[in-house]
Amino acid sequence: MQRALSVSRMSGNRSTFPEWYQAVVREAELAETSPVRGCMIIKPWGYGIWEELQRDLDRRIKETGHQNAYFPLFIPLSFFAKEAAHVEGFAKEMAVVTHHRLKALGGELVVDPDAALEEPLVVRPTSETIIGDAFQRWIKSYRDLPLLINQWANVVRWEMRTRLFLRTSEFLWQEGHTAHADVADARAETMRMLEVYRDFAETTLAMPVVAGEKPENERFPGAVATYSIEAMMQDGKALQAGTSHYLGQNFARAQNIRFQDAKGELEYCHTTSWGVSTRLIGGVVMTHGDDDGLRLPPAIAPRQVVICPILRDKPEDAEVLAYGESLAKALNGQTAFGERMRALLDTRAMRSADKRWDWVRRGAPIIVEAGPRDAASGQVVFLRRDALRDGDKVASQAMAQHAFIAEAPRILADIQSALYAEAKARLDDNIRSDIRSFEALADYFGAAADEDEGAPFRGWVRAPWSRPTGAALEAVDARLKGLKLSLRNIPLEQGGPGGDCLFTGAPAVEEVLIGRAY
Amino acid sequence: MQRALSVSRMSGNRSTFPEWYQAVVREAELAETSPVRGCMIIKPWGYGIWEELQRDLDRRIKETGHQNAYFPLFIPLSFFAKEAAHVEGFAKEMAVVTHHRLKALGGELVVDPDAALEEPLVVRPTSETIIGDAFQRWIKSYRDLPLLINQWANVVRWEMRTRLFLRTSEFLWQEGHTAHADVADARAETMRMLEVYRDFAETTLAMPVVAGEKPENERFPGAVATYSIEAMMQDGKALQAGTSHYLGQNFARAQNIRFQDAKGELEYCHTTSWGVSTRLIGGVVMTHGDDDGLRLPPAIAPRQVVICPILRDKPEDAEVLAYGESLAKALNGQTAFGERMRALLDTRAMRSADKRWDWVRRGAPIIVEAGPRDAASGQVVFLRRDALRDGDKVASQAMAQHAFIAEAPRILADIQSALYAEAKARLDDNIRSDIRSFEALADYFGAAADEDEGAPFRGWVRAPWSRPTGAALEAVDARLKGLKLSLRNIPLEQGGPGGDCLFTGAPAVEEVLIGRAY
Repeated sequence: MQRALSVSRMSGNRSTFPEWYQAVVREAELAETSPVRGCMIIKPWGYGIWEELQRDLDRRIKETGHQNAYFPLFIPLSFFAKEAAHVEGFAKEMAVVTHHRLKALGGELVVDPDAALEEPLVVRPTSETIIGDAFQRWIKSYRDLPLLINQWANVVRWEMRTRLFLRTSEFLWQEGHTAHADVADARAETMRMLEVYRDFAETTLAMPVVAGEKPENERFPGAVATYSIEAMMQDGKALQAGTSHYLGQNFARAQNIRFQDAKGELEYCHTTSWGVSTRLIGGVVMTHGDDDGLRLPPAIAPRQVVICPILRDKPEDAEVLAYGESLAKALNGQTAFGERMRALLDTRAMRSADKRWDWVRRGAPIIVEAGPRDAASGQVVFLRRDALRDGDKVASQAMAQHAFIAEAPRILADIQSALYAEAKARLDDNIRSDIRSFEALADYFGAAADEDEGAPFRGWVRAPWSRPTGAALEAVDARLKGLKLSLRNIPLEQGGPGGDCLFTGAPAVEEVLIGRAY
Repeated sequence: MQRALSVSRMSGNRSTFPEWYQAVVREAELAETSPVRGCMIIKPWGYGIWEELQRDLDRRIKETGHQNAYFPLFIPLSFFAKEAAHVEGFAKEMAVVTHHRLKALGGELVVDPDAALEEPLVVRPTSETIIGDAFQRWIKSYRDLPLLINQWANVVRWEMRTRLFLRTSEFLWQEGHTAHADVADARAETMRMLEVYRDFAETTLAMPVVAGEKPENERFPGAVATYSIEAMMQDGKALQAGTSHYLGQNFARAQNIRFQDAKGELEYCHTTSWGVSTRLIGGVVMTHGDDDGLRLPPAIAPRQVVICPILRDKPEDAEVLAYGESLAKALNGQTAFGERMRALLDTRAMRSADKRWDWVRRGAPIIVEAGPRDAASGQVVFLRRDALRDGDKVASQAMAQHAFIAEAPRILADIQSALYAEAKARLDDNIRSDIRSFEALADYFGAAADEDEGAPFRGWVRAPWSRPTGAALEAVDARLKGLKLSLRNIPLEQGGPGGDCLFTGAPAVEEVLIGRAY
């Protein structure tokens, strides 16, 4: 069978998922590595997805009362020393600017030793400290609270082993930072943004997630509580797709973020932070991609309908192009997902079959192939990328032009739902909750301990536990690490804990999710 | 007379324009300095203006066939050595990353000397070299051309003397980078984007400009030709508000950007680049601001209509708020400048008079004050920010609610036109073209040589010149520098050159603009 992609997710019994992921990112032209270690180039199609995703999430962030602002790229080294747990947690792998000038020396360009900075500047790995410093100046009284700020920015965390979108030294993200008068308001904000992320992931990315609290050992450095949404990739691994942190008064104390309350007393604020990044694009690939390449949820597809004209260097070409243009124009006048539909007539000088497979690989939701007969008859022949195949054949459909134009928004909504339903079934069917001992857990995942050898699909385990802390939790974590597993989160939606802790044998207080993770 | 702002543009005969500018930026809450030398914090109102401006310009960039992408923040040092004129021109004031780790040492956090990078990384001052490297890989044949890429990003150029928005070490911008098969196509692109900038500045920012070519000594480092749009600020100085460069084959040769033409021969591409930055916000302030603060063109105002409810802690407050809400909702259902109108009900706990002056300072185009009587009678009392005063009084107007809702888009369009007309008259009235000798030029500007002493308003001079090059041009530049003047550009729209060159006495070939500049 002809495939659009050079690599499949499985080859025989062997998982080739990592190679498949790389092939999709490369062949759908989403991103590539750059000559700068660990930094990626996001190509136009990948960046277009980011723009759609950003537009939708930005609207949600504003609708919940936040305002965007922009803070410096650089943070003075001394700022990191203020919150001890914060700097510890970041493992100190950061890009450091030490000089501000180059000079020519013997025909070469070198760093000018006379231009050393008095204080080194760190390229922001996250902006709690520099934004906290502004909050400390901006907040005077309870009337200034809550202060609800978001930033879209690039951040850098030096990484030794990188994978496009999933782990890169530089990435793009949004980081929300808020300050509140009391714990209840700050905790409500933390949960509100977690819910914004959950709904955004499920509705816009068609990527079902489990929202829950991270165990203590997985908290953001300096946080009192960290929540995440976790998505299941097609190899069964978990992708932490977004986090929301209640920071208590830790950062406020470290940075003197105080307000005068209604009685005139000075109090420390309670702060939160929350973020999602370009990592989500990796999540979309691993949730929806198939052996033909990417399949994009229409809500974030830069082009929702692509029209490929079948041209033969003959006089009829003009008619075909005119037909394609009028179709694209009519579609662009329609509304889908509350925005103007995004249709494109692809006029590149390429064979039309190559063009079709190019858009299949890129994951355009609807691909129209228009030839002279279609132009003459006013017919639209199209593929749905979510249901490309009918056995060995490509499953094309035909509709009258006016019907297609009228129906296109509904078809796109259908594709969005179908992609979600498929991913949701995979998630629901692959969380085992019948494993009752650590030995059974080891047995279940054990055979697949070496991921590079082609692990069979295992999904996650949902198990009762006693919520150990401190050294007891460290011990649990170490045992799991031996199986290349980790605690993902404690789902917000809990059944009864039902039984004893898988790790400690003590009576369980809740259930925790366990899995392999990116 | 009560003023919304603490500083006027003039105090007696003395210009206080620089202090006034700072006061507007501060009191309209656009931006502030940060603890990081030369880096600014763009506050929500300032960032909101950037978002509106960005949305509009991004649409224009896409409509002319460009696609957005994202390239690394860091550029290997060796890349800068490739294009000699490029690195010379940048004066080498750049932020250099030399290390990738911090470590704790004796309770302090220091740069880890064991984590020096093999090759230092420069924080991008502009991305010609790193994007050129990608182009060199992406472009194989003439079928790949033109390649039309744009990037929205932060860039860093180390600056010793900074001024918010106008000159900061880090700023936000867009940079277009394109590659073409021949000189004609690349030159057409250069002029197309100059025209996009001109129309954007005049239509969206209501900021009239003169588009023209920069003289040789003001070219972008490595460019064959540089074009700019120049705007006249209210102190008469020029602000270079956008540039478009034809780079010839200089960067293509330095970076081996080649393509196979239709005959199978390898040729170097012709490239262009073009950009505008957050500096435009400074231009908007200095074009439209008045002694009460900022006046925003409605097309880029984050809030076009602000409703300030007059609340008195009485039962009527509920009615006033309901009235304000329904008014905001009705306005937000309207369309202005092709987008949904942006109205806000300001419910902050502040005295309503303070609220009014706050929005006057921020430059909201229409400010509605709604009290119990308005709610009862269905009347709308409002101020137009472009015509705030009637003598000593604030010039408020009243309309019936339904009429106001229906008329609001037209009033906003009116305000946009009025701001443009005012600035356009200032520009047109203040370009002198009757100065015929360098002595007369010196005399005209001379009395104002020291800008800090309160220069009288002088505007620009448009003078015939013989387009000297090389050493002769350097000499002209030096003489002008003595008067704190510079050649701004050679306007695209030329009359007859009329006479001899102001500088060389040789027959003039064209006219050049001369002025003081930011």
